[in-house]
Amino acid sequence: MDDLLNRLIQGDRRALSRAITLIESTRADHRARAVNLLAGLPDRQALRIGMSGTPGVGKSTFIEAFGTMLTEQDLRVAVLAVDPSSTRSGGSILGDKTRMEMLSRNPMAFIRPTPSNAQLGGVARRTREAIRLCEAAGYDVVLIETVGVGQSETLVAEMCDLFVLLLAPAGGDELQGVKRGIMEMADLILVNKADGDLLPTARRTVADYAGALRLLRKRPQDPEGFPKALTVSATTQDGLPKAWMEMQALTEWRREHGYFDQTRAQQARHWFMAELRAGLLAQLETPEARAHLKDLGDAVAQGDAAPAEAARDMLDWLQKTTQN
Amino acid sequence: MDDLLNRLIQGDRRALSRAITLIESTRADHRARAVNLLAGLPDRQALRIGMSGTPGVGKSTFIEAFGTMLTEQDLRVAVLAVDPSSTRSGGSILGDKTRMEMLSRNPMAFIRPTPSNAQLGGVARRTREAIRLCEAAGYDVVLIETVGVGQSETLVAEMCDLFVLLLAPAGGDELQGVKRGIMEMADLILVNKADGDLLPTARRTVADYAGALRLLRKRPQDPEGFPKALTVSATTQDGLPKAWMEMQALTEWRREHGYFDQTRAQQARHWFMAELRAGLLAQLETPEARAHLKDLGDAVAQGDAAPAEAARDMLDWLQKTTQN
Repeated sequence: MDDLLNRLIQGDRRALSRAITLIESTRADHRARAVNLLAGLPDRQALRIGMSGTPGVGKSTFIEAFGTMLTEQDLRVAVLAVDPSSTRSGGSILGDKTRMEMLSRNPMAFIRPTPSNAQLGGVARRTREAIRLCEAAGYDVVLIETVGVGQSETLVAEMCDLFVLLLAPAGGDELQGVKRGIMEMADLILVNKADGDLLPTARRTVADYAGALRLLRKRPQDPEGFPKALTVSATTQDGLPKAWMEMQALTEWRREHGYFDQTRAQQARHWFMAELRAGLLAQLETPEARAHLKDLGDAVAQGDAAPAEAARDMLDWLQKTTQN
Repeated sequence: MDDLLNRLIQGDRRALSRAITLIESTRADHRARAVNLLAGLPDRQALRIGMSGTPGVGKSTFIEAFGTMLTEQDLRVAVLAVDPSSTRSGGSILGDKTRMEMLSRNPMAFIRPTPSNAQLGGVARRTREAIRLCEAAGYDVVLIETVGVGQSETLVAEMCDLFVLLLAPAGGDELQGVKRGIMEMADLILVNKADGDLLPTARRTVADYAGALRLLRKRPQDPEGFPKALTVSATTQDGLPKAWMEMQALTEWRREHGYFDQTRAQQARHWFMAELRAGLLAQLETPEARAHLKDLGDAVAQGDAAPAEAARDMLDWLQKTTQN
């Protein structure tokens, strides 16, 4: 265990992979080891960038280009995927590494797909903990990628320092397709594919979104001019340095004004409460508890016990069980 | 305590009022007495009718007329209000009794407004338990009234045998204003104010909604022709006997085909699990637990403890505390 932690801290990618596998495990002994490992991590910080975009927007190509650019600036980059939809089909996004071919072979980068058979809540815990592991392993930037499905954006925004929305060039009508709630979470909107024939459309799209962003209520954690919309091209790499510069400027401003630490503190509190609630409810998941729960549930369904009474019985039972 | 239960079972309205006050209390000793009281209730059933309608549709007038008609058929009627929005302003709907002047003076009827300072979750528990108390007190029909705010309709539909949507006569465009989710919960749509000048509009509105209902997926718990849309007039009382006949026919069919008991059993299971989860989380609400939680939360926010570690500490603390 100490060996794993030591190698992780030294930046060993295989140790990082093993540690993530450990935190992804649902086995009780693995979980206990994972909690110990997390408690022993050094206090290193990476910039946590959440990134959302609908399929077809060129997200993998963007991350490949953007991540490669960062490694060329001597920054170590980790990419984590949060894709609850892929878990429904039962498999991890094996395509991730294939799609990001260059980045996956880059020794300065680390790519980890969504684990298979995970639920949204489980993906949240795993991703939060994986971020901490990447930070401990000395990564400078952690990109958390999500497809725009259900609540995954909110979940990712709640664990990141910055939230970037990647969009495709589109007519004004399609602006409506981006939900207001997601717009409100964005720190930066990047309109991709701003090259060749699509360049004029991309510029118009940026102007449309810039207009829409100005209509949103000003957030205290934003300096003048943010949230911002920009054009980028993952293919020609135009706009990537500018996008990175804006991310750094925003982060710097938030650090100086205390919002960076404040947000992280809030996120940590939130995560603590989520873990605690999950831990309390986990008491119902042992085989004995499930069996007792089923009996009481049947009694309630048959009208032999009042729901409140059965709930009290179950709570008493849990208390007795933990005492022994 | 036995005295309260006895008087309640004999149908004493003051005992019913006192029992509801007891279940509304958040004091631990009151709660314990309430759970005992609920466990001792006889197994009587009323028809539980959920009723939703936006303000201005004439809901109070409808309930006054409909309730009075039922009492004239020798049926005892209880009206419970579920209005989380009124609790936000801090007061109970004092207007309820005033608005239903005739019914509130009727010895066959019992009207109880939403308690003050309750939250949606608390309103749910209180209303479910108040329904049981009304049933034990021998009421034949329990009307659970809600204004169409947020999730209150879903909540009410989950504790009722029938769900009735009361609407005003309106042009076709406004049909869109009723959310699909609420349409799907309705067993009966009643278009009120079908009298005088509004009668033709009311009839058109019924036709529009009947058309919309036919587009919904057929539910197994519905006989042919349901869900149904009808015109009613709370003022002239036209359509009220027909509406009651349809409610009885639907209930009868569901009883015969097992759906009535099946739905109640599911609702009881659901309520049991909700109570159990609430009970587990209530462990965090004692003054000592809150103090410990605050210390751990602060440590997490300051980066002195990992969230998962702090959650484990808190769970250990809870276990130790319940053992002593």
